[in-house]
Amino acid sequence: MRRVDFSKTKIKGGFWAQKQELVKNETVWAVYKRFVETGRFDVFDFEHHTAHPHIFWDSDVAKWAEGVAYLTHLEPCPELEKIVDDLIDLIEKYQGDDGYFNIYHMLVEPDMRFTNRDNHELYCAGHLIEASVAYFEATGKRKFLELMIKYASYIEKRFIIDRDTPFTTPGHEEIELALVRLYECIGDEKYLNMARFFVDERGQRQEEDWDWASLGYSQAHLPVREQREAIGHAVRACYLYCAMADLAKICGDVSLKDACESIFDDIITRKMYITGGIGSSSAGEAFTIPYDLPNLIAYTESCAAIGLAFFAHRMLLIDNDSKYSNVIERALYNGFLSSTSLDGKSFFYTNPLEIRPELTTRDGSHKYPSVHFPITLRKEVFDCSCCPPNIVRFIPSIANFLYTCDDSTIYVHQFMESESEIDLGGESVRISQKTAYPYDGRIELVVDRDARIAIRVPDWCDLYEGETIKGYAYFNAIANEPIVLDFKMTPFFVGANPRVYDDCGKYAVQCGPIVYCMESIDNGEGIRDLHLDTSAEFTFGRSDELGVPTLHIDAYRRRPVDSLYYKRADDFYKTTATLIPYFAFANRGECEMQVWHFTK
Amino acid sequence: MRRVDFSKTKIKGGFWAQKQELVKNETVWAVYKRFVETGRFDVFDFEHHTAHPHIFWDSDVAKWAEGVAYLTHLEPCPELEKIVDDLIDLIEKYQGDDGYFNIYHMLVEPDMRFTNRDNHELYCAGHLIEASVAYFEATGKRKFLELMIKYASYIEKRFIIDRDTPFTTPGHEEIELALVRLYECIGDEKYLNMARFFVDERGQRQEEDWDWASLGYSQAHLPVREQREAIGHAVRACYLYCAMADLAKICGDVSLKDACESIFDDIITRKMYITGGIGSSSAGEAFTIPYDLPNLIAYTESCAAIGLAFFAHRMLLIDNDSKYSNVIERALYNGFLSSTSLDGKSFFYTNPLEIRPELTTRDGSHKYPSVHFPITLRKEVFDCSCCPPNIVRFIPSIANFLYTCDDSTIYVHQFMESESEIDLGGESVRISQKTAYPYDGRIELVVDRDARIAIRVPDWCDLYEGETIKGYAYFNAIANEPIVLDFKMTPFFVGANPRVYDDCGKYAVQCGPIVYCMESIDNGEGIRDLHLDTSAEFTFGRSDELGVPTLHIDAYRRRPVDSLYYKRADDFYKTTATLIPYFAFANRGECEMQVWHFTK
Repeated sequence: MRRVDFSKTKIKGGFWAQKQELVKNETVWAVYKRFVETGRFDVFDFEHHTAHPHIFWDSDVAKWAEGVAYLTHLEPCPELEKIVDDLIDLIEKYQGDDGYFNIYHMLVEPDMRFTNRDNHELYCAGHLIEASVAYFEATGKRKFLELMIKYASYIEKRFIIDRDTPFTTPGHEEIELALVRLYECIGDEKYLNMARFFVDERGQRQEEDWDWASLGYSQAHLPVREQREAIGHAVRACYLYCAMADLAKICGDVSLKDACESIFDDIITRKMYITGGIGSSSAGEAFTIPYDLPNLIAYTESCAAIGLAFFAHRMLLIDNDSKYSNVIERALYNGFLSSTSLDGKSFFYTNPLEIRPELTTRDGSHKYPSVHFPITLRKEVFDCSCCPPNIVRFIPSIANFLYTCDDSTIYVHQFMESESEIDLGGESVRISQKTAYPYDGRIELVVDRDARIAIRVPDWCDLYEGETIKGYAYFNAIANEPIVLDFKMTPFFVGANPRVYDDCGKYAVQCGPIVYCMESIDNGEGIRDLHLDTSAEFTFGRSDELGVPTLHIDAYRRRPVDSLYYKRADDFYKTTATLIPYFAFANRGECEMQVWHFTK
Repeated sequence: MRRVDFSKTKIKGGFWAQKQELVKNETVWAVYKRFVETGRFDVFDFEHHTAHPHIFWDSDVAKWAEGVAYLTHLEPCPELEKIVDDLIDLIEKYQGDDGYFNIYHMLVEPDMRFTNRDNHELYCAGHLIEASVAYFEATGKRKFLELMIKYASYIEKRFIIDRDTPFTTPGHEEIELALVRLYECIGDEKYLNMARFFVDERGQRQEEDWDWASLGYSQAHLPVREQREAIGHAVRACYLYCAMADLAKICGDVSLKDACESIFDDIITRKMYITGGIGSSSAGEAFTIPYDLPNLIAYTESCAAIGLAFFAHRMLLIDNDSKYSNVIERALYNGFLSSTSLDGKSFFYTNPLEIRPELTTRDGSHKYPSVHFPITLRKEVFDCSCCPPNIVRFIPSIANFLYTCDDSTIYVHQFMESESEIDLGGESVRISQKTAYPYDGRIELVVDRDARIAIRVPDWCDLYEGETIKGYAYFNAIANEPIVLDFKMTPFFVGANPRVYDDCGKYAVQCGPIVYCMESIDNGEGIRDLHLDTSAEFTFGRSDELGVPTLHIDAYRRRPVDSLYYKRADDFYKTTATLIPYFAFANRGECEMQVWHFTK
């Protein structure tokens, strides 16, 4: 099974074309401006900078540059390319003779290079490497790649050859998957071996001493091959799991594959929000115990949803099981998309599944809150602003998730109005999709020569009657004869496992891949007391303001009560509830929001 | 309207006689032993102590001694009296010549006397004064009282005459009500004026500078007469409100009365758990915003339930409205009683309304938890052990809540198997109650001469058909002819105001004044997913192990589900739920518990 790179696909219209336009016209510039304002670009000029660099600023800009590479690939953007070229010149100018490059350490703590495991040096290096690979592949310009090859060699020297660093694995994973990517780009096994070194070393010794986190925080509690559960910081975890899956695939490493499979199943059966968000606890931005998925204080970092999609995509290359592509779909349309405002200019770092604005003021008389609630409106930039540039690189390359192939079959994982060219056993096949997905389940696929096609039947669709293998329907497509599938999109209620404390007694609403939510701006305050009628029919509507479909259903509300407690009386009145796609929440000011509803 | 002191009543049997026996035989000794072990008694001997005193240790022991005084009143306890006499000798020995007495400051920071508003000196002084009054009234021994009169004069000199302290009101209220009590004991208006000074000064200036709390934390955000809402630390607040109500009553102070009435209504209509617990936030042990009554992280300090009962009792003396006596009942049988194990030896400082043991382990990879959960089992002693001795003084004097009177009428607020002697317009009236309350609503009252009697009709009883004035039924009792009331105790479901976030969609179960709860030890794990059938009938049972009645009702549980999310199907099976009185929870090891249940 092979990847089909996003560059082989043109997204020609529909949902994702509009999102890509938005990134090109708005998001990439919005993030750029905020990064300029906060000094993140300024500090690349070691001689003239005025800002004080943070330990992870290199990675913020690197991810942004990676996004520019992908945009450039889709359509030339000379203005953005110039900005990246200038950055590369600065990196070239200030990179150490030995190859080392890290803004914070070179400017602030030059003597502390590679001494603090939690200082994100290798994390920044990883993102710089990824950006350099992407930029080379997009533009053919090799300078950035060469600089990073030099840096990678320096890393190899220090960590693997000389072994003179006080730690052997970084606190924040990323270098591992970046090295695999470098290997895949230039074919030198040295980088594959380096990736394997960093993966294999993790958890072999008790090498950290952080007063605020246990070893599991950075997945260093056990050798990775012995790990079976997702624990610790969710983004760090997913980036590690990506590298593990890469190595499992490339090296045919069965014990890594077994670990990845168990960890993935642990996530999707016990630790994932219905939105595909993961990492529910603000303490450590981390996975917690199984079934602990609080809605109000859901952490669910945007980067973690991205990380989960990356991980699932790599697992799909090992085993074409729709559990992986279903999770990608879930994250794409919900927990990932919610990260960005509909105008493309502001972002959630955390993505709560419930908002009650007044609760954030609960600790008025005390200056330390008892519970940390996520912010209720998106912001343009954060002190730790890893998510916005991750979005900038994610959406332009979204078509990476569309197809995989082997020598005889094209696997169709996602549905997007698009045209692609896929190399199938040495021959080029053009494949096109016509669809209004995710708002309509009709998909028309055409190939320009006979080919075997496997199409994912989405997990939300229980009406498909054909045969499937691991969730995929197989067809012998005839050249230029459309294959039409129509996955009926009827809104439905979703329950959570009874062990999920916070969802007990409640149901979510989904239509197709899209999870819907309620906001008080549409339903009046106190939406928690709006009980949806499970025996009623949903009707469809549309919000012109948001540009999204809406759902409407009969609901019941208790009549206002004066007293704090009262003898139960069935005193409800009938009303209508309005739901909007979860990803569109918090675009009309601060208000109550919830994904899980009481029903009646 | 006048108090009827507990000393006028003999509780002869039934529920409270058993609780008083338990305090006398177990609790007072259990607390004593833990206090000896932790050095709280040791430090009274300034020359030979080895423990390091804490700033509030004086008050812990003072409350315990006050409890001893009440026990002595009920029945001689020479052994306990000897311990208190020895303590008094030590206080006499080490009290400053000027009258000052504070263990922490005299032993640890002798130069810092009355310099730190948050150091609990006046709080300790208040409890010592209360204990001295109680001990004098119980035993006739005057020494302790005289020592405290001397201390009170020193406090007057420093705070009111010389005004040479850097703060004018204490961070933790208590001195105010203690001074009223001293005034009522010995009749010297000086102490009343001192109480008024401390009450009136509060909130007049921005005198604190705590980095962790705002002025409202200690109710210093506004002059007390302008306060209309309960805010800040709940115990501090209630002790202040007690003094405000005392002064409103004694001085006929209308603006204080108005403030007290508003604050009381704010508590009972917006900030009180169904158990009578108050102060829902662990941040500051404080009241939070209206309707913010989380169950899992309910703080509801035991001392706050006691403080609320004290406050309500004082309000009842101003206005004979059953809203006050109903709250006392609610606190007595629920949020207060839950504080103590059924064997009388261990205690809850906080009284959660829901326990899910596994959630306390949610932050495994991070060393700082994201949410602080209350402890799940009672402990014998705490670092801050204010609650256990508060219980020791509360239960022996519980009959304080039974009656009040004016010149012509006896007001019957609570129901206890008892005999009392009440001075009614100069004549002594004997009044007896026969009842199995709180487990049976039949009350037989007998007076030994004709008298007007007003009897509270409990708020849980909606079947009483006679006329009532502010919740009281009035009778012209004829000498030795029983008045029999039978408040039918039928279990019922209670809803919370829709604005209470955490109780939305759920109902509690109450029978008579007792709130019931479910524990997983009776119902299997995952009690949150046990949906009680509101159309079914409750049946009564009994737990011999706990010595309490039980309730049983049809309920529904979802069948186990493998996946994390599933399309809704009404896949419930029928079972039976067992409920026990809330006050009896956590007496059989750690397990799940909840007061609010989903229903079906």
